[in-house]
Amino acid sequence: MPNLEYTEELKQKYANLTRTVNEEFINIHPIQRGGILTPEAYRALIAYADGYSLCDNCLKGRIDKIENPPVIDFLKDMASYLQIENVMPTAAARRAKQIAMKVISERYPKRRVVIVDSLAHYTTYLAVETNNLQVKEVPNSGYSEYKLEKENFEATINQVQNDEAELPLLVVLTHVDYKYGNFNDPSPIGEICEKYNIPFLLNAAYSGGIFPIDCEKGKVDFIACSGHKSMASSGPIGLLGFKDKYYNDVMVHSKIQGNLTNRTFSNKICTFMGCPPVYGAPLITLMASFPTVVKRTQKKYVKEESKKANYVIEKIQTIKNLKVLGKLPKIHPLTNVETKCFEEVSKSHPRRGFFLRDEFKERGILGMLPGISKEIKFNTFGLSWDQVKHFTNSFLEIAEKYNLL
Amino acid sequence: MPNLEYTEELKQKYANLTRTVNEEFINIHPIQRGGILTPEAYRALIAYADGYSLCDNCLKGRIDKIENPPVIDFLKDMASYLQIENVMPTAAARRAKQIAMKVISERYPKRRVVIVDSLAHYTTYLAVETNNLQVKEVPNSGYSEYKLEKENFEATINQVQNDEAELPLLVVLTHVDYKYGNFNDPSPIGEICEKYNIPFLLNAAYSGGIFPIDCEKGKVDFIACSGHKSMASSGPIGLLGFKDKYYNDVMVHSKIQGNLTNRTFSNKICTFMGCPPVYGAPLITLMASFPTVVKRTQKKYVKEESKKANYVIEKIQTIKNLKVLGKLPKIHPLTNVETKCFEEVSKSHPRRGFFLRDEFKERGILGMLPGISKEIKFNTFGLSWDQVKHFTNSFLEIAEKYNLL
Repeated sequence: MPNLEYTEELKQKYANLTRTVNEEFINIHPIQRGGILTPEAYRALIAYADGYSLCDNCLKGRIDKIENPPVIDFLKDMASYLQIENVMPTAAARRAKQIAMKVISERYPKRRVVIVDSLAHYTTYLAVETNNLQVKEVPNSGYSEYKLEKENFEATINQVQNDEAELPLLVVLTHVDYKYGNFNDPSPIGEICEKYNIPFLLNAAYSGGIFPIDCEKGKVDFIACSGHKSMASSGPIGLLGFKDKYYNDVMVHSKIQGNLTNRTFSNKICTFMGCPPVYGAPLITLMASFPTVVKRTQKKYVKEESKKANYVIEKIQTIKNLKVLGKLPKIHPLTNVETKCFEEVSKSHPRRGFFLRDEFKERGILGMLPGISKEIKFNTFGLSWDQVKHFTNSFLEIAEKYNLL
Repeated sequence: MPNLEYTEELKQKYANLTRTVNEEFINIHPIQRGGILTPEAYRALIAYADGYSLCDNCLKGRIDKIENPPVIDFLKDMASYLQIENVMPTAAARRAKQIAMKVISERYPKRRVVIVDSLAHYTTYLAVETNNLQVKEVPNSGYSEYKLEKENFEATINQVQNDEAELPLLVVLTHVDYKYGNFNDPSPIGEICEKYNIPFLLNAAYSGGIFPIDCEKGKVDFIACSGHKSMASSGPIGLLGFKDKYYNDVMVHSKIQGNLTNRTFSNKICTFMGCPPVYGAPLITLMASFPTVVKRTQKKYVKEESKKANYVIEKIQTIKNLKVLGKLPKIHPLTNVETKCFEEVSKSHPRRGFFLRDEFKERGILGMLPGISKEIKFNTFGLSWDQVKHFTNSFLEIAEKYNLL
C-alpha cells in the first residue's frame, strides 16, 4: 500500500470545505430545515469547537453529571419539556431506538416481535434487525393519504399474540414520517399499548423540536428524538427519553473487573459505553438552542409553520398532473408532491430528470433530489414568509415555463 | 410532572454557554491537547455547523459514499495514512473497539476471552463487557515505569489456551495509555498475534494523529482512532480501520424486509446503523484537519513534541518528593507526575487539595484535576515553546513558594 505523504496537493484537497447552501440559497431539503442552528447555538459551537470541549469540568466521569456547563440541569429540563421522567443523550435517534429495543428485549426475552407502522424510517427496521428481533408492520391506507388507523395497531397486536403465543415486544409509532410528513397522534396508540401492557416507543425524530410533545398524555414509555434533525443542533445528537419503570434497564452500570488490576468501573453506564458520544459541539448546541426550541413549539408558532406548508400546497395544486401526497391539511411542513407533470417534461428534456433541480437552483432554491422529477419532497419549516412565497412562485414559474398551468 | 414553559429565566439559563479555557488560559488537560481544532477545521466547522450539513449532496444514502465534500476520497487517504485497507468513521474510538469485538466474536463464537494490556482505557473493558466477553489482563512492570513486555503477552495467550482450550478472541494493545502516556510499539505484539493467528486490535485513541502509525508493519488487524482526542476534530468522531480479511464481517448489509411493504434496505450497513453518527461537524473537521495531522506526524514534528515534555520533566525533577511515572524519556507528551510534595502542602493548606489548581490557574494554566494534589497529569502537545517554558516556570515557582526546591 503506498504511504500517504504530506504534499501541497493533499493540503489543497481539503483546504476548501465550504458549504454555500444556507448562505446563498433557500434550502428546502426535508432533513435540513429543523437542524439549522440558532444564533445562540452558533456562538456556543464556536466556543466549544475543540474535541472534547464539554468535558473540561467533568468531575464525576459522566457527561450526564456535568454541572458546568449545566448538562445535569438541561437533561432535567428536557425531561420536563417532553413530559417523561428521564432523558439521556445518544448519538442519534436511531441509536435511541436501538437502545430501547435492546433493553426491553433483555427484560422480556421471549417476546421477539416489534410492531412498527408501515411508514417507519429505515433506522427503525435496522434497530429491529440489529437486536435480532422480527418486524411486523401495521398497514396504512395507501395512496394517496397513507393514513394509519388505531384499529390496525390493535389488530396487529392480536395477530402477533395469536401467531407467537407471546405479546409483541414493543410498538413503535412514527410521530411524523420521513416520507409524507404525516402527523400521528400518539395518544390512541398509547392507550392500546397500555391496555395490552406492551411498551410504547414514539419515534419523534421529525417532530421533537417542531411540535410540543407530551409523553405522559400519550402514554409513551420511550421517546427517540433527533437534535440535528429537529432541534437546531449540530449533529450528531439524539435523545432517549424513558419512564422510571425502565430506569434500571437503561442505566446498566458496569460490573466487569480486571483479573490482575482488580479495576472496576461501576460508575460507568454500559448502555452508553460510559458516556454517549456527544462530548463537544453536539450537546452544547442542543443546550444553547433549547430555549428557542421550547419557544418555537408553542402553539401559535407551530400553527404558523403549518400555514406555510398549506399555503404552498394551495397554490401549486393549480398545476396540472400534480398531487400532494399524505394527509391534508398539513400539520408538519414536510410535504411530498407527486409531480407526474414534471416527469413528463423530463422525458424530452436534454437534462432529463435533472432539469427540475436546475430550474429551482436557478431560482436560488436547493435541496431537491438530483435526477428526480416524478416527486418533490420539501420542508418549509423555519422559512420566512418571503422565502415561502418565493418558493411557491418559483414552483409556479417552472410549471408555467413548461405549459403546465 | 410540571410542564416546562418558555420563560425569560429559561432563556437566560442557556444564554451564555461560553468556554474561556483556550482563549485566556493554557490548557494542559491530557485529553484536550490533541483535539484542538486547526484554523482549517474552524472554518469548516462554521460552514457545516447545521444539523446534518454534510449530507446535502448524499446521492447514495451512505455517508461513506459522499463525493461532495470528498468523504469517499478522505476515507481512502486515511486508510493509506494508517496503512490499513479500510477505514470507516464511528462515533468514537470506544465504538470502534466495540464493533471490532462484536464482529470478531461473531466470526469465532467459541472464543470468549479478550486479552488486554493492564493499562487499557476503561472503554476497552466496557467494549469487552457489552459484547458479553471476558477480559484477561497482561501484567505491567508496576511502579514506577508500568512497562509492558511482549513475553507477557505470549504467556497470557498460552494461559488462555490452557484454561479455555480455545484461542483468545483478540489481543488489544493500548498504543499510548491514558494514565502514564507510555508508548508501546505494536510490532512485537503484532508478530506474536500473527504467530498464534489471533486478531490484533491497536487502540490508537491517544496516538493516531500524534504519531505516524503503520498498521501493515505492526501487523494490526483493527485500529481504533479518536478524532476529538488526537486528530484536531470537533467531537465526537472515531475511526475503525480494518484489514480486507474482515471486510465482510464489518460491512454487514441489512437483510430485514417489511412483511407488508416488502421494503428492504440492502444498501445500509447494520454495523453502523446505516450511517455512523458523524453527519456534520465531526467528519468535516476531521477532514479539514487531515493535512495538518499528516504533517504534524512527520518525524521532525513528533520529535519536537517529545522534546517539550522531556524539557518540563528535566526541570521539575529538581523539586523534592516528586517523581515522574511511566517510561522515560517520554515519547508521547502525556505525562503523569507523582507529587507527594504538593500532597504534603495540601494537608495544612486552607484550600486543601484545591490549592494546586488555584496556583496554576493564577498563572494562566488550566486542566489540573480539581482537589487533587498527589498527582499531576499534563500534556504539552501543541504548546508553543514559550508556553512550555511558562508552564515549567510556573511549576517551579509554585514549588519554590512552598519551599520544595
